[in-house]
Amino acid sequence: MSIRDLARHLDISIGTVSRALNGKSDVNPETRERVLAAAKKLGYVPNQSGRSLRQGTTNTIGFMIESTIETADNGGSFFMPVFEGVQSVFRRHHLDLVALLCGTDEDPSAYLNRVVGRRFVDGLIISATTRNDPRITFLLDRKIPFVALGRSATGGAYPWIDLDFEGVAATAVTRLVNFGHNRIAIGVPASDINLGYVFQDGYKHALAANGIPFDPALVLPAHSNEEGGYQVASAMLAQKHMPTAVILVNENMAIGLYRRFYEAGIHPGRDIAVIGFRESTQSRFLSPTLTCFRISLRDLGIKLAEALLSTMPAFRNNYPQERVELIWPMELVPGESDVLKRTA
Amino acid sequence: MSIRDLARHLDISIGTVSRALNGKSDVNPETRERVLAAAKKLGYVPNQSGRSLRQGTTNTIGFMIESTIETADNGGSFFMPVFEGVQSVFRRHHLDLVALLCGTDEDPSAYLNRVVGRRFVDGLIISATTRNDPRITFLLDRKIPFVALGRSATGGAYPWIDLDFEGVAATAVTRLVNFGHNRIAIGVPASDINLGYVFQDGYKHALAANGIPFDPALVLPAHSNEEGGYQVASAMLAQKHMPTAVILVNENMAIGLYRRFYEAGIHPGRDIAVIGFRESTQSRFLSPTLTCFRISLRDLGIKLAEALLSTMPAFRNNYPQERVELIWPMELVPGESDVLKRTA
Repeated sequence: MSIRDLARHLDISIGTVSRALNGKSDVNPETRERVLAAAKKLGYVPNQSGRSLRQGTTNTIGFMIESTIETADNGGSFFMPVFEGVQSVFRRHHLDLVALLCGTDEDPSAYLNRVVGRRFVDGLIISATTRNDPRITFLLDRKIPFVALGRSATGGAYPWIDLDFEGVAATAVTRLVNFGHNRIAIGVPASDINLGYVFQDGYKHALAANGIPFDPALVLPAHSNEEGGYQVASAMLAQKHMPTAVILVNENMAIGLYRRFYEAGIHPGRDIAVIGFRESTQSRFLSPTLTCFRISLRDLGIKLAEALLSTMPAFRNNYPQERVELIWPMELVPGESDVLKRTA
Repeated sequence: MSIRDLARHLDISIGTVSRALNGKSDVNPETRERVLAAAKKLGYVPNQSGRSLRQGTTNTIGFMIESTIETADNGGSFFMPVFEGVQSVFRRHHLDLVALLCGTDEDPSAYLNRVVGRRFVDGLIISATTRNDPRITFLLDRKIPFVALGRSATGGAYPWIDLDFEGVAATAVTRLVNFGHNRIAIGVPASDINLGYVFQDGYKHALAANGIPFDPALVLPAHSNEEGGYQVASAMLAQKHMPTAVILVNENMAIGLYRRFYEAGIHPGRDIAVIGFRESTQSRFLSPTLTCFRISLRDLGIKLAEALLSTMPAFRNNYPQERVELIWPMELVPGESDVLKRTA
């Protein structure tokens, strides 16, 4: 149903139909009413592609995620609730959200360049920021509104929100030290993703604050999935003095780690202390239930959307004008996995 | 960086720059080279919005998913590998994939109507088909190329691919009957999603084929997540004659089901037989490992992409011309969860 079809149906000129749809005052009120009624009935929707050229807006915001191994394994359960929160804000402004999927073997910067060229988004949310992230410079240079989910060492003034990886590491280390542990391993991402660096820094600071020397042998890089957790457990089992506790940067790792320890006759929550990362729908159904950290991903999505809109001329008046640079706190959810209950 | 900026930078007319970029022969080769070099250096990308009006194409395909409770919980781990497969085909044709996210409280048909109106996609992949799905009629009426992931009772000639829910139900029932079970429960979706009907039909047929009467009390509707699995186990425990086996339509349910049975002192794989649905990254790390069914989601994505492109004039010559109506087989992966090993 194009405007041409609509005009033909009504037997009115295209120009008149267009002026009626756009609320121009030189159209007879009865005609306008007929046009609007027919447009509604026939499901006419303006060609956004033409509108975008005239108005420079598409009413669409892109959320760029990378469908790498990392996100393929666990990105979905993370991103879906975030999308929900973002959408709840966008709905107020009749904005649609699309997920821009950057493929595994594609350079994220080249992808972003192309997406921006297509001009079907008015603004962007980027995620999985790397330690040095050229996308940030690219978007700043072009004055394209964006917000980053994740920090980066790349400079520039832009809004970002990140999870409190330092806080999680510090809380987990201190909790385990209080339980009597001093050989505490961490399972960290094998990739260049910035959160890996931040998490390790938090771990080191917390060890130092508790007077425990840092031992690089206890930093175990692995994929952020079940297989990675299985490998972390294997690496721990192979050590001469096995660590008595482990903190994982991803909750899916816990399932593989549990399995590997069970195979070795070692019971998590009895023989070894485990702290996972984010509370998921599974955490409290695992045996033992997983000590982890709670975050409302929907609220995170809401805040991301608001941080973005506060930078966009068409929407900024609805939101506070400070640039959002926010470390999102996560709340400890004690489980059975890190309090060792000796049966003997 | 618009074509205007590029022309100004080069001190050449916009028309000449445009003809150079579009490879017209009436441009001096040296000039063309200067233009292309500057476009590359300055990161100029053509305004796709303008191009889309002229060519009627956006080189973008939309994959519509609903961010409902069902998908929020488990959609990600399913869809991400499918996206990967779709993208591997689209890349050959310089097509980009975007995920169109229909929010929880939005009518999928109204959403689709709006997306189609925005005209930023050349074709669509729809998923989570309902028993009667007005989106199918809408897209057929408008001759918009699409492929459906999932069947529907809605009529019309369109390409679709669906998982072999009947086959899974039949294989699982027959396997459990051969192990001596005759009270076999199923955990099915609580929603109107078409796969729930198909799965139940397969279950009933397989029972009949094995001479076991159908007992509606053994059909247990629940959310397709851990919580749902927990509830299915509770419902089983509450029955006077507890079923000795259960087939779940979703693998995430297994984790909650295991937990509930453990709490009751009942060990899956020893006291009760469990067959999950799709093999996930977790299946072989659970204790007991989960008997489930294997599918390559990446291959499924490839086939979806090819089924769509075979209907699109610009690409159809590269693909077989039969309309794809395909029930995708799934292969049994035996685990420890359904072979009862009595310790006594």
